[in-house]
Amino acid sequence: MRKIILIRHGASEWNLLNLFTGWTDVDLSEQGVTEAKEAGRKLKEAGIEFDMAFTSVLQRAIKTCHIVLDEMDQLWIPEVKSWRLNERHYGDLQGLNKQETAEKYGEDQVLKWRRSYNTLPPLMDPDNPLSPVKDRRYANLQKRIIPMGENLETTLERVIPFWEDQIAPAVLDRKTVLVAAHGNSLRALIKYLEEIPDDEIMALEIPTGQPLVYELNDDLTIIRKYYL
Amino acid sequence: MRKIILIRHGASEWNLLNLFTGWTDVDLSEQGVTEAKEAGRKLKEAGIEFDMAFTSVLQRAIKTCHIVLDEMDQLWIPEVKSWRLNERHYGDLQGLNKQETAEKYGEDQVLKWRRSYNTLPPLMDPDNPLSPVKDRRYANLQKRIIPMGENLETTLERVIPFWEDQIAPAVLDRKTVLVAAHGNSLRALIKYLEEIPDDEIMALEIPTGQPLVYELNDDLTIIRKYYL
Repeated sequence: MRKIILIRHGASEWNLLNLFTGWTDVDLSEQGVTEAKEAGRKLKEAGIEFDMAFTSVLQRAIKTCHIVLDEMDQLWIPEVKSWRLNERHYGDLQGLNKQETAEKYGEDQVLKWRRSYNTLPPLMDPDNPLSPVKDRRYANLQKRIIPMGENLETTLERVIPFWEDQIAPAVLDRKTVLVAAHGNSLRALIKYLEEIPDDEIMALEIPTGQPLVYELNDDLTIIRKYYL
Repeated sequence: MRKIILIRHGASEWNLLNLFTGWTDVDLSEQGVTEAKEAGRKLKEAGIEFDMAFTSVLQRAIKTCHIVLDEMDQLWIPEVKSWRLNERHYGDLQGLNKQETAEKYGEDQVLKWRRSYNTLPPLMDPDNPLSPVKDRRYANLQKRIIPMGENLETTLERVIPFWEDQIAPAVLDRKTVLVAAHGNSLRALIKYLEEIPDDEIMALEIPTGQPLVYELNDDLTIIRKYYL
């Protein structure tokens, strides 16, 4: 039996301010730190022994990963970070207040941006100082693959190659794996693993800081799924 | 011009207790955390942009690495951990109080263990519950290469292959590199880089938590060396 454990990072500073975050590299809030510690304690109690961790290149996921592993005395395991596990890029909505955006564009439009599988947000201008094109951490990516705004469909398209090339081979190699990531990159991964239809996936809510365990068969089909 | 920055972890819990630590995986002390934060602030002020970090599989070095990178908003860089950057294994002296050991074995013997280049400490029994052979993090190493006690000479012999295979290629690839490690693994690396003779190296003291910058030529010979 193979095992992967997914964890969505704890509350960030912008969650508290009700802002669209996306690829903005905001820190965990104090509450987020507490959630991550609690998750680490639960995983330790459950006797989980990780062999490897995967996370995004955004500090709220990386810190969640580190805090969890620290609580478990397993900081020494190899860790791979990738932009492919980043949160959905929210385009020009990043940095806007969700309530104010609803007042400006209407509730229906915002609901569509937030809850439709394949509606793109207003795209960010690559010359915007906040654009990932300006960020050193994406400098080794061809510009044409750096998103200026994503929906869950395009998020899934860049998450799954990372699953296929990095995470799945580790699981097939019998490694117990931690994936510390974001609401939408995890939603994409879960959609793929559970084969959830396009029109159902946006209703799936993944709580922050709760370790989600998947027990898998040798062919990576699911035996059991549960929150710790 | 190429650049590597070495940092010895800040004070650990056992530094304060004056115990031989070696491969014992003790945590940073509060002072050690403060030292690492201060190092991160200095590196940020100096405008350093790291491309990659290397550290040991011991939490006091890993945490120093993470705290430094967090202060610099560079937690996203790739990080490679290896047992080859571990502190010198102190054999059966691990866990003993330095003062008590001097009273038991004599000052001269302890000085020899601590300051001779090639005197081995009393070796640990592989069946000792504290032996690295019992530790999951070394499970992928052939038992014959897991040390039961090291001097600086044998420490150097296992540090340098990691320099040759991992760190030097990154530096040659023009990456600015952080190495967060330990008093003796760094001493070994510095001996190699600066070609310091056997009988002089033990006198070299590396202060904790002080970023040590090496500016290197294309052939990795040293242009300049300074503490930040």
